[in-house]
Amino acid sequence: MTTQQLHEQILQKKSFLCVGLDPDLTKIPQHLLETEDPIFEFNKAIIDATHDLTVGYKPNTAFFEAYGIKGWMSLQKTINYINENYPDIFTIADAKRGDIGNTSSMYAKAFFEDLNFDSVTVAPYMGKDSVEPFLAFENKHTIMLALTSNEGAFDFQTLNTNGKELYKQVLETSKTWKNSENLMYVVGATKAEYFTEIRKIVPDSFLLVPGIGAQGGSLSEVCKYGMNDKVGLLVNSARAIIYASKGTDFAEKAREEALSVQKEMATIIDRRF
Amino acid sequence: MTTQQLHEQILQKKSFLCVGLDPDLTKIPQHLLETEDPIFEFNKAIIDATHDLTVGYKPNTAFFEAYGIKGWMSLQKTINYINENYPDIFTIADAKRGDIGNTSSMYAKAFFEDLNFDSVTVAPYMGKDSVEPFLAFENKHTIMLALTSNEGAFDFQTLNTNGKELYKQVLETSKTWKNSENLMYVVGATKAEYFTEIRKIVPDSFLLVPGIGAQGGSLSEVCKYGMNDKVGLLVNSARAIIYASKGTDFAEKAREEALSVQKEMATIIDRRF
Repeated sequence: MTTQQLHEQILQKKSFLCVGLDPDLTKIPQHLLETEDPIFEFNKAIIDATHDLTVGYKPNTAFFEAYGIKGWMSLQKTINYINENYPDIFTIADAKRGDIGNTSSMYAKAFFEDLNFDSVTVAPYMGKDSVEPFLAFENKHTIMLALTSNEGAFDFQTLNTNGKELYKQVLETSKTWKNSENLMYVVGATKAEYFTEIRKIVPDSFLLVPGIGAQGGSLSEVCKYGMNDKVGLLVNSARAIIYASKGTDFAEKAREEALSVQKEMATIIDRRF
Repeated sequence: MTTQQLHEQILQKKSFLCVGLDPDLTKIPQHLLETEDPIFEFNKAIIDATHDLTVGYKPNTAFFEAYGIKGWMSLQKTINYINENYPDIFTIADAKRGDIGNTSSMYAKAFFEDLNFDSVTVAPYMGKDSVEPFLAFENKHTIMLALTSNEGAFDFQTLNTNGKELYKQVLETSKTWKNSENLMYVVGATKAEYFTEIRKIVPDSFLLVPGIGAQGGSLSEVCKYGMNDKVGLLVNSARAIIYASKGTDFAEKAREEALSVQKEMATIIDRRF
C-alpha cells in the first residue's frame, strides 16, 4: 500500500484509527476459550465489528509469541483474514525488531513476505544498517521508534545529545538513510507537547501514535500539534477497544468504543480537510 | 542456570565460546533440503558436533521467523533438543525484543517459559519498564544491547550524552533497575578498545561478544581488555563456524573451526585461571 492510498482511505472513512490487537488469554471473553483457536476467534470478531471505522490493525507480536507455535499460527490466520477480507486496511506488525544487516533482512522477509504485512515497527538503537534492509521493500513501510509512550522513554530518548534530545537526533539521522521515504515514526500520545518539535523535523511523515485510551493520551491534543496537511497520523488504541467488555457482547462494545473515537476523528477531519 | 554454574562450565570446558545458530536455507548444505525439517537437521548436526567445545548456543530468531510457522517449529525443536540432550549448555534467544511493560512481559513469557531459554537479548531504547519484566524471572538472564558490532553502532550508541557516550549511560542506568543482577550486556568484538571503559562500569557482568569470525573481531584483544576474574565473557561466532563448509562434511568442518577457537580460549584460561 502507498501512503497516498492510506491518505485516501483516511479521508474516505473519516478515520485515522488503528486498532491494536493484543490478545491475552487471561483477558479475552471466557466463552471463546472453548473454541479451537480463541486468539484468532477474538481477533476475527473484533475485526469484523470495527473494520469500517478503522484504517489499520496492529497485531502486537509479543501477544502471539507468548503462546508459541499456536500463537504464531493465530498471527498468520489473523493477518491472512485481514488481507483476504479487508485488503484496503493498513496492517502493522508491531514487532520492534532491529539487528545487524543480514539479520534485519530476515526479519523484513518474515513480516513483509512471509506474513505480508504492510509495515513493521523497528527499534533505532543499532542504527542505519539495522533499519535499511526494511526500507528496501517497495510499498512497505518501516515504523521506527522515536519517542515512545511509556515512562522509560525518559531514560534515554530524551537525553541531551550534542544539544538536542536523542529522539530528535534519531529522527534527523534517519532522514539520511536510503529509501527513507518508506519511514514512519512511533510517537507516544502521552507527550502531545512534543509533536510541534517533531513536525519541524519530519513534517511529511506518518506518525503512529500509541497511548490513546488505556495509557491516557488526549486525541485532540495529538491532532492539534501532530496533524499535517495529509493528516499524517495513525492513532492506535488497543485495550480500551478490544477489552471494552469481557462478556459475549465484547465485539459490540468494541465497536461502540471504536465508533466513539472515529466520531471524534470525523469532526476533526471535517473541520480541517 | 545461575551465573556461577555458567562460570563453572567455562572452567571445566576451558571454553567461553557460544555458537550462533543463524540457519539460512540458501546457505546450508543442499543435501539437507531433502529432509523434512532442514533447519532443525542443520542445527542438530552442528550442536552434536560442537557441544563439548561450547558453553552456549544462540539461535537468532530472525532466521526462524523468516520461514513462518515452519521456522518457529524448527526453533522450538532446536531449543528442546539442546535442553533435553545438553542441559548444561547456556541458551540465548537472540531476539532483541523490548516494548512497554505489559508487552515485554509477554515476550519474557515466550522465551523464558514457552521456549525455556536461559536468556534473551533485549534492546534498551524504551528504558526501564521495557526491560524490568524480563529481569523478574529467577535464574534467567537478560542480555541488553550496549555497544554493538555493526557500523550503525556509531549512529547513536556513541553519541555524547551529557558528557558520556550513550552506551555508557545505558550501562550505568541499567544498574539501577530492579533485579539488575540478572543483566548481561552485548558488546561487539570489533571494538576491543572500548572494553576497558565498559569494565569500569560493569566489572562483574557477563558480556556477550559477537563479531568474532565473519565480522572480523580479535579474540585475544577482547580477552585482554574484557575478561574479569570470573572470565565474564561469552564470545559468539556464527557464520565462521556453521558455514565452514557447504558440503556433507559441514558438521565436521564446524567442529574443526570451533575446536580452533576453543584451543585459543583454553590457552587464555590456562594462563589466567
